[in-house]
Amino acid sequence: MPVDVIDIADPDDPRVDDFRDLNSVDRRPDLPVLPGGRPGRGLVVAEGVLVVQRMIASRFAPHAFLGVEKRRAELADDLTDASVDGVPFYRASAEVMADIVGFHLNRGVLGVARRPERLSLDAVVADARTIAVLEGVNDHENIGSIFRNAAGLGVDAVVFGRGCADPLYRRAVRVSMGHALLVPFAPADDWPGDLHALRDNGFTVVSLTPDPDAVALADAVDADRVAFMVGAEGPGLSETAMRAGDVRARIPMARGTDSLNVATAAAIAFYARAAR
Amino acid sequence: MPVDVIDIADPDDPRVDDFRDLNSVDRRPDLPVLPGGRPGRGLVVAEGVLVVQRMIASRFAPHAFLGVEKRRAELADDLTDASVDGVPFYRASAEVMADIVGFHLNRGVLGVARRPERLSLDAVVADARTIAVLEGVNDHENIGSIFRNAAGLGVDAVVFGRGCADPLYRRAVRVSMGHALLVPFAPADDWPGDLHALRDNGFTVVSLTPDPDAVALADAVDADRVAFMVGAEGPGLSETAMRAGDVRARIPMARGTDSLNVATAAAIAFYARAAR
Repeated sequence: MPVDVIDIADPDDPRVDDFRDLNSVDRRPDLPVLPGGRPGRGLVVAEGVLVVQRMIASRFAPHAFLGVEKRRAELADDLTDASVDGVPFYRASAEVMADIVGFHLNRGVLGVARRPERLSLDAVVADARTIAVLEGVNDHENIGSIFRNAAGLGVDAVVFGRGCADPLYRRAVRVSMGHALLVPFAPADDWPGDLHALRDNGFTVVSLTPDPDAVALADAVDADRVAFMVGAEGPGLSETAMRAGDVRARIPMARGTDSLNVATAAAIAFYARAAR
Repeated sequence: MPVDVIDIADPDDPRVDDFRDLNSVDRRPDLPVLPGGRPGRGLVVAEGVLVVQRMIASRFAPHAFLGVEKRRAELADDLTDASVDGVPFYRASAEVMADIVGFHLNRGVLGVARRPERLSLDAVVADARTIAVLEGVNDHENIGSIFRNAAGLGVDAVVFGRGCADPLYRRAVRVSMGHALLVPFAPADDWPGDLHALRDNGFTVVSLTPDPDAVALADAVDADRVAFMVGAEGPGLSETAMRAGDVRARIPMARGTDSLNVATAAAIAFYARAAR
């Protein structure tokens, strides 16, 4: 049984409330439900054909779609997946859709899911050979890029240390090309204590740093299990976090230049391991 | 002799016209002068302390600055450079500066230069060992990131093939962290004919492609002179361009993923060569 296609002509139809005013700071459906009446409805939003396909393939079970007919047709095969049996696909014109969403959405289709229970650190690293560990990466675009690079270059999981942005924020999901929904991630609630737990599980924790005394990255990628730890641009990793790791590794940089963007540095580390 | 500090209290002062309405599509000072009355004043704009420092160190000779006192003080050493002797530094409050520029500029200081004569392909590759060649890279943020990555990872020059965005557009300069002003670049006016000229000059032209039949990137980075050629996300390099190159190389990608962002792919190639 495929999705249940329902035509929406009235932008005020309450059935599409989960897609309403996506950019409004007052109701941001894509933020977690937070105490104290702050905005956030605890939803995850997928935008565009590719990301909606990945949401359907992920553990994030969409409970509704909103889109124009053209995009529904492009998704026809995906929308017969057993996981979306009977799920409503609200079909609207581009104009009605823009009225609902609050802006013109070029990508023409949205999927929405409730935020599932978060995964545990133990669960996401159980079978992993290569993981990324982030500290203080508080930019949604960088988080999204790290997931895209992780997926492309064979990284198995992402662990969030202290001070990171939300990977399920709409912009992060979009920049990740939907890989934030597919690459498993978990928080390290005990920071940096959980780094010791990773080491106890056989991971070599490699801190990326511009420190000239660090070993060359290529010499730090061969262990059986590797956790690449990266920090925010500017401050980089905290000394506390690096001390809890095994080895400090640097990407060779030209003189007089700054460090690379954090997602770019992470991609280079992922490549160095994938290509070894 | 340092710069000539001139206080500006009236946002309509004609002396700061080169900084006016930076975002206005009608006058965009940072676009080339184009025929037919289209916008564009042929200027190059540097934003923020770091990028202004790099402009002063570059071949782009600033003829004026606009900034708040705090940023002028941070730049005090740079503003005594012989290249800016007697150049006006228009000092204004943050409010007056916002009125001039058209928006609140967090970075607090701007430098402006006239676009110099473009460099020739022969000149920029003359002493280069590693260069990047771009085709169809029409996104300013990607262009900026490529310059940042090129500078950080020791690439000597950038060559623009067909269909690329302007590296001197304000956003490209900003994302490059000012390296678009420091890493020499030139257009390849004969495309793809100039690739043959590069080969005649001893460059091995390496096309980056997701093609599974291509050689592994790590096996294509050892030549004495290497030109890494990258194309836009989506279409990638044209077959015509790749045929004019020497070798096709691929970054190993996980199954079911897309290609990487073009600036990320270029960074990985630059790293693979720097780390060899």
